Amino acid sequence: MQMAPQMGYDRAITVFSPDGRLFQVEYAREAVKRGTTAVGIKAADGVVLLVDKRITSRLVEAASIEKIFQIDDHIGAATSGLVADARSLVDRARVEAQVNRVSYDELIGVEVISKKICDHKQTYTQYGGVRPYGTCLLLPDADHLHLWLYLCLLPCTLLEYKATAIGAGRNAVVEVFEADYREDMNIEAAILLGLDALYKAAEGKLDAGTLEVGVVSLQDKQFRKLGPEEVGNYVQQILEKNKGTENKE
Amino acid sequence: MQMAPQMGYDRAITVFSPDGRLFQVEYAREAVKRGTTAVGIKAADGVVLLVDKRITSRLVEAASIEKIFQIDDHIGAATSGLVADARSLVDRARVEAQVNRVSYDELIGVEVISKKICDHKQTYTQYGGVRPYGTCLLLPDADHLHLWLYLCLLPCTLLEYKATAIGAGRNAVVEVFEADYREDMNIEAAILLGLDALYKAAEGKLDAGTLEVGVVSLQDKQFRKLGPEEVGNYVQQILEKNKGTENKE
Amino acid sequence: MQMAPQMGYDRAITVFSPDGRLFQVEYAREAVKRGTTAVGIKAADGVVLLVDKRITSRLVEAASIEKIFQIDDHIGAATSGLVADARSLVDRARVEAQVNRVSYDELIGVEVISKKICDHKQTYTQYGGVRPYGTCLLLPDADHLHLWLYLCLLPCTLLEYKATAIGAGRNAVVEVFEADYREDMNIEAAILLGLDALYKAAEGKLDAGTLEVGVVSLQDKQFRKLGPEEVGNYVQQILEKNKGTENKE
Amino acid sequence: MQMAPQMGYDRAITVFSPDGRLFQVEYAREAVKRGTTAVGIKAADGVVLLVDKRITSRLVEAASIEKIFQIDDHIGAATSGLVADARSLVDRARVEAQVNRVSYDELIGVEVISKKICDHKQTYTQYGGVRPYGTCLLLPDADHLHLWLYLCLLPCTLLEYKATAIGAGRNAVVEVFEADYREDMNIEAAILLGLDALYKAAEGKLDAGTLEVGVVSLQDKQFRKLGPEEVGNYVQQILEKNKGTENKE
Amino acid sequence: MQMAPQMGYDRAITVFSPDGRLFQVEYAREAVKRGTTAVGIKAADGVVLLVDKRITSRLVEAASIEKIFQIDDHIGAATSGLVADARSLVDRARVEAQVNRVSYDELIGVEVISKKICDHKQTYTQYGGVRPYGTCLLLPDADHLHLWLYLCLLPCTLLEYKATAIGAGRNAVVEVFEADYREDMNIEAAILLGLDALYKAAEGKLDAGTLEVGVVSLQDKQFRKLGPEEVGNYVQQILEKNKGTENKE
Amino acid sequence: MQMAPQMGYDRAITVFSPDGRLFQVEYAREAVKRGTTAVGIKAADGVVLLVDKRITSRLVEAASIEKIFQIDDHIGAATSGLVADARSLVDRARVEAQVNRVSYDELIGVEVISKKICDHKQTYTQYGGVRPYGTCLLLPDADHLHLWLYLCLLPCTLLEYKATAIGAGRNAVVEVFEADYREDMNIEAAILLGLDALYKAAEGKLDAGTLEVGVVSLQDKQFRKLGPEEVGNYVQQILEKNKGTENKE
Amino acid sequence: MQMAPQMGYDRAITVFSPDGRLFQVEYAREAVKRGTTAVGIKAADGVVLLVDKRITSRLVEAASIEKIFQIDDHIGAATSGLVADARSLVDRARVEAQVNRVSYDELIGVEVISKKICDHKQTYTQYGGVRPYGTCLLLPDADHLHLWLYLCLLPCTLLEYKATAIGAGRNAVVEVFEADYREDMNIEAAILLGLDALYKAAEGKLDAGTLEVGVVSLQDKQFRKLGPEEVGNYVQQILEKNKGTENKE
Repeated sequence: MQMAPQMGYDRAITVFSPDGRLFQVEYAREAVKRGTTAVGIKAADGVVLLVDKRITSRLVEAASIEKIFQIDDHIGAATSGLVADARSLVDRARVEAQVNRVSYDELIGVEVISKKICDHKQTYTQYGGVRPYGTCLLLPDADHLHLWLYLCLLPCTLLEYKATAIGAGRNAVVEVFEADYREDMNIEAAILLGLDALYKAAEGKLDAGTLEVGVVSLQDKQFRKLGPEEVGNYVQQILEKNKGTENKE
Repeated sequence: MQMAPQMGYDRAITVFSPDGRLFQVEYAREAVKRGTTAVGIKAADGVVLLVDKRITSRLVEAASIEKIFQIDDHIGAATSGLVADARSLVDRARVEAQVNRVSYDELIGVEVISKKICDHKQTYTQYGGVRPYGTCLLLPDADHLHLWLYLCLLPCTLLEYKATAIGAGRNAVVEVFEADYREDMNIEAAILLGLDALYKAAEGKLDAGTLEVGVVSLQDKQFRKLGPEEVGNYVQQILEKNKGTENKE
Repeated sequence: MQMAPQMGYDRAITVFSPDGRLFQVEYAREAVKRGTTAVGIKAADGVVLLVDKRITSRLVEAASIEKIFQIDDHIGAATSGLVADARSLVDRARVEAQVNRVSYDELIGVEVISKKICDHKQTYTQYGGVRPYGTCLLLPDADHLHLWLYLCLLPCTLLEYKATAIGAGRNAVVEVFEADYREDMNIEAAILLGLDALYKAAEGKLDAGTLEVGVVSLQDKQFRKLGPEEVGNYVQQILEKNKGTENKE
Repeated sequence: MQMAPQMGYDRAITVFSPDGRLFQVEYAREAVKRGTTAVGIKAADGVVLLVDKRITSRLVEAASIEKIFQIDDHIGAATSGLVADARSLVDRARVEAQVNRVSYDELIGVEVISKKICDHKQTYTQYGGVRPYGTCLLLPDADHLHLWLYLCLLPCTLLEYKATAIGAGRNAVVEVFEADYREDMNIEAAILLGLDALYKAAEGKLDAGTLEVGVVSLQDKQFRKLGPEEVGNYVQQILEKNKGTENKE
Repeated sequence: MQMAPQMGYDRAITVFSPDGRLFQVEYAREAVKRGTTAVGIKAADGVVLLVDKRITSRLVEAASIEKIFQIDDHIGAATSGLVADARSLVDRARVEAQVNRVSYDELIGVEVISKKICDHKQTYTQYGGVRPYGTCLLLPDADHLHLWLYLCLLPCTLLEYKATAIGAGRNAVVEVFEADYREDMNIEAAILLGLDALYKAAEGKLDAGTLEVGVVSLQDKQFRKLGPEEVGNYVQQILEKNKGTENKE
Repeated sequence: MQMAPQMGYDRAITVFSPDGRLFQVEYAREAVKRGTTAVGIKAADGVVLLVDKRITSRLVEAASIEKIFQIDDHIGAATSGLVADARSLVDRARVEAQVNRVSYDELIGVEVISKKICDHKQTYTQYGGVRPYGTCLLLPDADHLHLWLYLCLLPCTLLEYKATAIGAGRNAVVEVFEADYREDMNIEAAILLGLDALYKAAEGKLDAGTLEVGVVSLQDKQFRKLGPEEVGNYVQQILEKNKGTENKE
Repeated sequence: MQMAPQMGYDRAITVFSPDGRLFQVEYAREAVKRGTTAVGIKAADGVVLLVDKRITSRLVEAASIEKIFQIDDHIGAATSGLVADARSLVDRARVEAQVNRVSYDELIGVEVISKKICDHKQTYTQYGGVRPYGTCLLLPDADHLHLWLYLCLLPCTLLEYKATAIGAGRNAVVEVFEADYREDMNIEAAILLGLDALYKAAEGKLDAGTLEVGVVSLQDKQFRKLGPEEVGNYVQQILEKNKGTENKE
């Protein structure tokens, strides 16, 4: 049988396999790979987050599915993976942000908040009786010197990316970025690049109604989510650009 | 054997399967699929809840089986799945509503109450020694700006629907809604649509004595359950409308 | 093998089966099905409880086996299933009744007491390290407006019945009730109906010495157990009525 | 294999079998069935306890093996099953008796003390991490109105008997009682009946040195154990009565 | 296979076997059977303890292996089985003895101290997460009325013996006692009887250097261990007595 | 099967194998062997740390992957193995360093800090419900008398090395050190030796952008990480030295 | 299969095997048998400890591997087995020594300290969720009357030896001692005897750089470790003595 290599080492986070792997942590990563595609891109003048929510039924209020969250005035988060786990981590991040305001009277940095979430997630990979978090966060930030896009991965590798994606469409999106990403693009160009990548990951299906876009710019350092009209305009440009190359399946 | 794919990954909520799934949470969802059919519909002037209680013995006092609960003056809940679990969550919701009144001197919003229940349910999917809740709630609300119908799903996806159903008849009911639901229908039309869907889900069996109907309107923002007479009138209309197409089994 | 469908999902209350069932809770229900037959009947002027204790040895003091318990002046309980579990729940109900008297200076309602027992039993179906209660209670009550017969089932469905039974003879008894129960019968008729049903369930064996009968009437709202003489008279009527149709095994 | 029916449901007290049984509790009952034979008999003027201690080596001080314990001035207990478990329960009973004296300034009734022991034993059949008690107590009492012989069985059925036995010789002894017990016999006759039954259970072996006899009479309501001389006299009568019918194995 | 009868019932103290046995407790008893041979003999004027320590290497300081311990001025203990467990129980006994002195200003009786140790050991046979004690104590005592030799067995049977032994040579020693023990022998004769039995149990090997002998006499009621010279004299007598019958293996 | 030798002894840290090994601790060591290569070299005038971070995607900000951490002004740490575990231990080390400053008003020695981390890691190899740390630290220090390079290994052997490596390239690096290390080399020579070894371990691939180098010198006793320019210069020397011998795969 | 005899009784310290053995404790003993060879010898004027550290790589600072520890001014300890466990026990011993100084203002005796460590180790062999210590200590002491060499074995037998060894070379060393040890040898002769034994255990390999020697003399009662020069001189004598008989492998 093909399950033999694991031989039961994959039933608990407190058990290493003979080759030093923690299978449960790797399996939790699979939960993220099956999630909605979330994208983050660093532009010259800000950072951009995009999520394709993949809703099909007309009976669902698309606005009620939230995949991009405001953490504080200056920080947002795009999530993928188990929805309930994501909500739990977002709540934690929000509390950390408020604690920082009260304790030090200043805004928390995205690096600090990312490390705190990572440390929290690490404990869920070392002690028995719990499971690891099956979710992943993209955390952008724009301070006056640098632009950050921190990705809080599983089990808890903290990485700064120029542009990346998590979730089901990750491979397709990253392929686009490896080819077309340029560090000098502005926010508008970054949004279009992200939508183009999502368009390809979804094989030509792109619906302004089920897209969420969040932006934080160097200028005002405020994280805000774009309104449906703004998103619609960008989507329109992508659809026109790809006309003729659309996937007809 | 056909059980091989799970290979024991489905015996505890603290174990991910190799493809990142939490089987115990998915199995708990099955408990809901085997429950009574509960329906929620958003109308232009209110929200409607309906439950078909499926009682057969004449020795049972139908009134003693409660599937639609008053959470607070302005919020109700329709439940499906494990009865005891539903009671436990409803109690929790009621306490949250009272705490909000005392703490802030205002009525709790359905979004807030739904999130609190979801967060509570999430913890039952991450820690060992417990099982996930095997129940599902439909939570309607009517504030002066919007009409909400929040569905607190398993493991804990919080979704706003225009019209939806949970329980054994879900597929049959949703099929009716996908075809006939219109956002501009009023409360009366919504009740009739819901009864019609339940009539089809139950293959033509509809008994006013075993139906519960709850309504909250934009006008007075009070959640109330309809009396047996009111329900009887609506059922009569459905039975007449469907005369000739009745299921004779 | 015929055990295959469970595949180990039935070894703990914290594990759902793939089709969303809690086998341990269902197995606990079997403990009740193997218990003594306990019967409850709502009459027009009161509620009646009967238990057939099934004692065979002449060395046992029949009076020492108690299956119908006084909870408070106005509430009794008939039990079936694991004896020790029943005692534990009865004690809990008695405490709740006294707490209500002290806290609110009024008698507790049977609905309130039933819900409290149900909530208590629910926790024994969700947390590991314990087993569900293997017992069932019939709780009658008579307030000045209504007559109640609440049945506190497993895992914890709270149902009001007109007439019902639990334990080994349940099916035989319910069959009699479905045929002969009338809502306008008085207490005396209800006792005779119950004894008749127990007579049939026991295949013609009925011994006044091993029967317990409890009554609460609308008039005085006091729960009391009938003396051996009273019970003997009723049994005599049943035996005479069934003369000729007796089971001769 | 013949073990198949249990299929592992018998490894923990927190697991019901598919037919609603708690095997671990039933197995604990087997520990009692393998214990020394303890007998209790209600006479017209008192209650009698007898235990056959089955000692064979001349190197053991028979007096050091205690199977009949004084609980309070007016209550004794005969035990069978695991010795250490019996000691633990007897200690508990003694404490309950003293607590009653201090709290209410009166002697505890045997019914009260039996219920307290039963409630204690019930908790050891519902929670994980412990095993049920593998012991059984016979608790006699004589108040001015009634004579009691309470038997505190496993898992915790509380029964009042006229005459009964526990332990290895139970079946042989009960057979004698079913035939020869009369409610009007006095203490002396009850002791002789008990010894006769033990004589038959032990297949003709009866040694005054390894017998314990305890008595509580209606007259003085004091529980006392008979001295070796008294026991010797009774044994002598039994041996003479059975002369000629002795077992020669 | 020959292991089938246990079928896994022997892996935890919290699991009864179908015939009501606690295998783990029985296995712990085996640890004692493999221990050094410890002997206790009641004489007319005192009690005697002897242990054969079985040391072979000349590099070990025999005096550092202690098998007979002083519990209090008037009580000693001979141990067999797991050494570390014995030390733990001896420490407990010493504390109990001191507590008794402080609380009641009198010496503790051996019966009291034995019961306290037994109660302590019982808890290790009922709760999970621990193992039973794998050790056994012989506790002699001499008060002004009686001479006691209490044996604190596993799981916790408390027995008074005239003469007995525990450990690997138990059977051989007891055989000698059954034949030659007389209640009227004095301390000296008892020591010689014990050494003779150990001589036979060890098949003719007896070394004064590896023997421990403890004595408590009725006269002074002080427990003391004999010096090497005293022990040597006694051994010499045994060796001479058995000359010619020595084991030559 | 080849898994037979472990026979399940490798599923928990609380289980020894028959030959006295703790497999889980050995498996955790494998996690380190699969980590990035970290190198430490003691020079005559300081200690040097080098890590090759192995980053391939141009979308990752290499600077965000930190493998060499500042513990205090005078101590650094190079890590390999599970990233989250390393962060957890580094945090612990930093706290210990600050505690030492506050408590004793002096800098903590590397020996003290290493022992504290080791003691902490030991507890994770003896108690159930956790897993061992899957990470390893290299801790250099330079006090005015000696130069130290402490390696805090798994399970927790504390060793001082002249030059060593952990992680995937350990064997290749150590081979270079065994041949070419000299105790009298200065910091510059040590850096070049380390880079040369990493060059060979990576089979000729060496990128200044993904290398981290940390240095603490005897002169100023400050731990500092080299800037990208400094690292680039050293890499250039290695590449030129190895020109012609480059790996072309 | 050859594993059959254990049948799973060797997976937890809380499980006895049918023949009364604690396999996990025996397996822990194996960890000591695989450790470095530690030797202790009692001389007429002091006690000597020697450890052969077996270091091969020239990159390791031999001085950083410590196998002989100072416990207090007058007590040392030689260790073998799991390094981290040894450190943990040594720390405990040091604390006990300091507590004794503070509480009683006198030096702790080696017998007291050994018993405290043994008691501590015993608890790790009786309670679940931990593993036994996989290490062994040799504890020498010299008071003005006696010379002690206590060996704190697993599970916790406390023995005083004249001369003994633990670890991989134990058998070879003890063979030398059985032949050549004399109680009247002085410290110098004891060191040479120990080195000679280690020389034979290591099959002719003996390196002053990887040997540790500790001494406590009757004269000054201070435990001290010999400097490298002193050790070198002794080694030189052994090498010369064995010239011609060297192992050439």
